[in-house]
Amino acid sequence: MEILAMNCGSSSVKYQLFNWDKKKILARGVVERVGLSDSFILHDVVGRSPFREEHECPDHWTAVRLVIETLSEGPERVVDSMSQIKAVGHRVVHGGENFTQSMLITPEVLNGIREVQHLAPLHNPAHIAGIEATQAVLPDAPQVAVFDTAFHQTMPERSYMYALPYEWYQKYGVRRYGMHGTSHLYVSKRAAVLLGKKTRDCNLITLHVGNGSSFCAIKNGVSVDTSMGMTPLEGAVMGTRCGDIDPAIPGFMMEQEGYTFQEMDEILNKKSGILGVTGQFADRRDVLKFAERGNHRCQLALDLEAYRIKKYIGAYTGVIGGIDALIFTAGVGEMGWQIRRKALEGLEFMGIEIDDDKNTQAISRFQENDISVDGSPVRIFVIPTNEELVLIEDVMAILKGRYKNHMEFQYSFARKSYQPGGS
Amino acid sequence: MEILAMNCGSSSVKYQLFNWDKKKILARGVVERVGLSDSFILHDVVGRSPFREEHECPDHWTAVRLVIETLSEGPERVVDSMSQIKAVGHRVVHGGENFTQSMLITPEVLNGIREVQHLAPLHNPAHIAGIEATQAVLPDAPQVAVFDTAFHQTMPERSYMYALPYEWYQKYGVRRYGMHGTSHLYVSKRAAVLLGKKTRDCNLITLHVGNGSSFCAIKNGVSVDTSMGMTPLEGAVMGTRCGDIDPAIPGFMMEQEGYTFQEMDEILNKKSGILGVTGQFADRRDVLKFAERGNHRCQLALDLEAYRIKKYIGAYTGVIGGIDALIFTAGVGEMGWQIRRKALEGLEFMGIEIDDDKNTQAISRFQENDISVDGSPVRIFVIPTNEELVLIEDVMAILKGRYKNHMEFQYSFARKSYQPGGS
Repeated sequence: MEILAMNCGSSSVKYQLFNWDKKKILARGVVERVGLSDSFILHDVVGRSPFREEHECPDHWTAVRLVIETLSEGPERVVDSMSQIKAVGHRVVHGGENFTQSMLITPEVLNGIREVQHLAPLHNPAHIAGIEATQAVLPDAPQVAVFDTAFHQTMPERSYMYALPYEWYQKYGVRRYGMHGTSHLYVSKRAAVLLGKKTRDCNLITLHVGNGSSFCAIKNGVSVDTSMGMTPLEGAVMGTRCGDIDPAIPGFMMEQEGYTFQEMDEILNKKSGILGVTGQFADRRDVLKFAERGNHRCQLALDLEAYRIKKYIGAYTGVIGGIDALIFTAGVGEMGWQIRRKALEGLEFMGIEIDDDKNTQAISRFQENDISVDGSPVRIFVIPTNEELVLIEDVMAILKGRYKNHMEFQYSFARKSYQPGGS
Repeated sequence: MEILAMNCGSSSVKYQLFNWDKKKILARGVVERVGLSDSFILHDVVGRSPFREEHECPDHWTAVRLVIETLSEGPERVVDSMSQIKAVGHRVVHGGENFTQSMLITPEVLNGIREVQHLAPLHNPAHIAGIEATQAVLPDAPQVAVFDTAFHQTMPERSYMYALPYEWYQKYGVRRYGMHGTSHLYVSKRAAVLLGKKTRDCNLITLHVGNGSSFCAIKNGVSVDTSMGMTPLEGAVMGTRCGDIDPAIPGFMMEQEGYTFQEMDEILNKKSGILGVTGQFADRRDVLKFAERGNHRCQLALDLEAYRIKKYIGAYTGVIGGIDALIFTAGVGEMGWQIRRKALEGLEFMGIEIDDDKNTQAISRFQENDISVDGSPVRIFVIPTNEELVLIEDVMAILKGRYKNHMEFQYSFARKSYQPGGS
């Protein structure tokens, strides 16, 4: 039985085809430049050479059809017919307050995604276009929406409200939502297994550190605070996003340099963070290389990123009232032993003690590691994330009527017998 | 010997006349509506009825002359002639990176204040006007500038830099500066006395909670991080300022509602915070009263303020590597036992244990209190601040050539024999 996972962006459609029975990814790929000229598909099947083909895709409908035809027809196919694709899961960036869990897509759900599209104006309209296109191409396959924000809907009001005019919340939904929900969910449930505890007995801080980064305070198994806010801009120092700053700065710089809204938005999201500080690099490997060679701005960028992580660890430890484990995940979290070491330096007094050897050896995206000093009070795990698996399992569970919400559903990876292997 | 302390704002001139030998304030007051019509002076002398007089002040020069004439001539005078005023200390909000300590005002210093006036466009030009006016009226009195930002100039780069385009720092000085320096200085030195330690051996978090609020991480006696940023907008939930928010929100709301820069700046600084959440009150006493009666938004405002304090305590404890004491100061910090209790709830695991009886009894602006549980690891002090005394002592020390910087100068209040009494 095949399930298609889709992530429809404003000018791209990413996909993975997953075989449920074998628990294997059959193919993955992306259509780029959707709605622009010179669009093309990159299609990757395990054991075959990557396939690339130019194909004009003036809209999401054409792109989705291209994906499904590539999967089921012609020389690059991995299934014999479209009808083998039994269900589709869509990643949806913003569910606002409408969605606290994954949902079978109905007209009402589609409408709910549309209602909050002002909160993610680049993403939600693309998701809607992609969902409608998929419905047209695969009218018989049920579709499920999996929200980046849903996992954080357990946050209390004191965590999600800003000290801003209350009408902004009432009228526009201005509040903290948080992102990376499926990743925080996955690694927190894996951490519970590694701790040998029930999820609901776990107090954790999960640190998703990648090009985009977010941190999550997990108390009794549920998200009680997270660093991304109404948008993904808040919180961590990221590859190209600034994270926390004085909120007076954007207006100040718009006055100094005459930037428009759009230009400022672009700078804060795409030209700040590690890239802004170094002036050259967003990829931490480049930053590390030049920092080692003595480049001051590269050293500063690493310092800033690590220091921000440290501040959140302290803040969330206080909020939770003590933690069982810290979890690093995503590209940088899984492989960046330097940033892990720097972020945890000086936290020994809180029971957070990193084992230098274990830390430098934990650089695989396919293996879970405990990098804390034996017997120290707080476990420090490196856990490769698997957001696609959460999506696929939500789709299957909803199809089978076995899904209530992410707290109560028994994921395969929340079992001791589960063998993580990356995706 | 009399010393005049001045705080020249864009449309007001506040002052205090201090007798150094008796260590007493002789008079204090304010000229309001400077540069506007209907300006007036309010003049308050201990033991006399408050005095108010209408007096047109089209500029700072007229206002400063009015202040000095009121102090030294006519029925409300407290000294016999202007020449008794031997020195003047000016509070200066923003010293940028130019000033790491209080300074005798020379043409170069005045120029340094002017150089960073883009960072405090409402305050620094008014300070300069006030200083020049005072020089004109009292040409023989040396003048000293005491900067709100100076105390925080010991912050390391990782604390003061933002993950923004590096050129913004180089070109405009976009970085964290912090404010309330004299207050953090005063209470940290008092805390050292109460702890019976040298300042340089103290690790502290100072929480200045008033209408404006800022927090400071003090390691080995010096500021290593603080919550206010390039401007006073960042950090705490304040009376009318939002503090930390997703930096995408101002732009988002400008688009939704068509606000201009100026309108957005006004909303974030004057209509947010406690006032924004409650929709009615910035004064915590009102908020408390209505929260007790069950008003949800008042309860939420207190929750948000307390939760933000808790997050910073956790973050700064992590950054410092463990603390000796927490200090509450300023109006709300000194009297708001409810917010202190709420902010510290659940931090017992970090050694922060508040004694409920001591806490509810510590509501004086004139008495220092230790409100922690006897024998608990972290002291919790309530210390009334005295920013004016710091200013006066800096002025005197500079005049006498005994001042090097705030770390090395021996303030009267850093001695065991000092009797705090409020100002």
